[in-house]
Amino acid sequence: MSDTACVLCMDMGGTNLRFGLVDHSGELKWSLRTTTEAGLPREEIFKKMLEGLQQGIDVARSRDCAIEGIGAGVPGCVDFERGFVYTLTNVPGWDNTPLARMIEEKFGLAVFIDNDVNAMALGEHRFGSAQDANNVICVTLGTGVGGALILEGRLYRGSSFTAGEIGHVVIRDDGPPCNCGNRGCLERYIGNRYLVERAALLYRRHAGMHIPEDLTPETLAEAARHGDDIAGAVWKEAAGRLGLVLAGLVTVINPDRVIVGGGIANAGILLFEPLEKVVVERSMKIPGRHVKIVPAKLGEDAGLIGAAALAMENLL
Amino acid sequence: MSDTACVLCMDMGGTNLRFGLVDHSGELKWSLRTTTEAGLPREEIFKKMLEGLQQGIDVARSRDCAIEGIGAGVPGCVDFERGFVYTLTNVPGWDNTPLARMIEEKFGLAVFIDNDVNAMALGEHRFGSAQDANNVICVTLGTGVGGALILEGRLYRGSSFTAGEIGHVVIRDDGPPCNCGNRGCLERYIGNRYLVERAALLYRRHAGMHIPEDLTPETLAEAARHGDDIAGAVWKEAAGRLGLVLAGLVTVINPDRVIVGGGIANAGILLFEPLEKVVVERSMKIPGRHVKIVPAKLGEDAGLIGAAALAMENLL
Repeated sequence: MSDTACVLCMDMGGTNLRFGLVDHSGELKWSLRTTTEAGLPREEIFKKMLEGLQQGIDVARSRDCAIEGIGAGVPGCVDFERGFVYTLTNVPGWDNTPLARMIEEKFGLAVFIDNDVNAMALGEHRFGSAQDANNVICVTLGTGVGGALILEGRLYRGSSFTAGEIGHVVIRDDGPPCNCGNRGCLERYIGNRYLVERAALLYRRHAGMHIPEDLTPETLAEAARHGDDIAGAVWKEAAGRLGLVLAGLVTVINPDRVIVGGGIANAGILLFEPLEKVVVERSMKIPGRHVKIVPAKLGEDAGLIGAAALAMENLL
Repeated sequence: MSDTACVLCMDMGGTNLRFGLVDHSGELKWSLRTTTEAGLPREEIFKKMLEGLQQGIDVARSRDCAIEGIGAGVPGCVDFERGFVYTLTNVPGWDNTPLARMIEEKFGLAVFIDNDVNAMALGEHRFGSAQDANNVICVTLGTGVGGALILEGRLYRGSSFTAGEIGHVVIRDDGPPCNCGNRGCLERYIGNRYLVERAALLYRRHAGMHIPEDLTPETLAEAARHGDDIAGAVWKEAAGRLGLVLAGLVTVINPDRVIVGGGIANAGILLFEPLEKVVVERSMKIPGRHVKIVPAKLGEDAGLIGAAALAMENLL
């Protein structure tokens, strides 16, 4: 890749699309965001994808930058090898879409598509918090709880491309129903919505408590930082639950690093301090002492840079 | 390896040593067992190792069979790359033993040493139930609950050689103390001794029940097969606990196969039927439908054949 070469990338979310140009040092040279209202048909979303990608191509041309390929992360289950979307978690109408081929036909560039958390893990491994680690568990905390595994220095996708789904590890046999059809999944306790629900319940139980307006993980973290006991307890409980699942995975997978990203991870020390304590105390001694738990580094650009890393990894 | 070539192997247990000669088809051509009383000093056990291995060499010579190398499985934590024993679980005095080098010096053959469950997994992958599987979780049920992972067709050892320790995944935050220093580990519920303790407790609670004499996992399985409700309940509970841990690992690792071996696995349908049900129901849909749960195939020779597979894998 020459100094003026770059990768075109796309990060698909539930209600928005981001596009970017990333160079070989992992720098995002240009980016663009567009929204896709909920319920938009697949053809309309696909049209927006092509428009965004075309803009990236035009920008690259105007800057004399050669695009070597396209990488994309999408929120769902993907057969990476065929660039085939089986299903997207919160975007209906995308079942069985040969997305890589559809994009390749338009632009004549090699296209690589994977699950967005897989892409993020590749980005953190190439350019972020996991750069010098061989075995890594990645977790993203947000509306959903996602995960991905880097093993022996390579993304591990599993036998049917679903590896890493930490959010759907069952932590309570008789727990409440989860969107996935199971019961008692980790996500059902520490996903954004449930974290807030849990806080609301505890505030109601303690009449007279000041309830933060507009209860979100962010306001909850803010309240905890200002000494609100209930907010503090909710964070500690969430960290304990995530920590016990991660402790089990650290025992079985014996990784160098656990990377925690996504919106909730912004709670910082509120989350990381109790999380680290639980993981170290409740995993086996040797792997528990070995592992380091660190925040993701690439922040809100993790999806784009990850999609670029995905393309770079496979273009080589 | 010629038709008359073989590998010399050793399987070290808590109180016995087994030696064998295994050919390239995985057939055990000769074997020998010797006991090592508890508390025997390391030098005495090592002397017995050398005697057993020498006997194997003599037998091979008498049969015109060329020994290509030595493989050994030991019950503990091993740095496979250096053939270095960090510690053995139930055999004191073996911390920091450069065992591969010590054996190499005596016989001038290449020596490969690994954890016994890792060796067993390699044996099942090369010659047993995991032959055509790419990603495999192996579990052994006995006094302890062990595990190993085959990922992308290769044994996955983790960042400090401890990967696979399924028995020490914590299933209850506030569970009873485990030998490993943690609390609420899976092994603390379904290891031989605890399975029997649990049954004894339930029998005592139901005065008037016929308590099988000499309560062991075997007699407990026998009682369950004859319609003993308590024995049946103990097995179902154990399968449920193991199943929930495996369901989580199936969700995260997305393997082709789960192989269950060791003494307790002989309970057969008593264990496998509820186990399969829990794993399929409580893991995510796609990986849950994909995975097959099967008994280990190599039985009591799994340790020897696994140690042989370890050597074969690394001699190539």
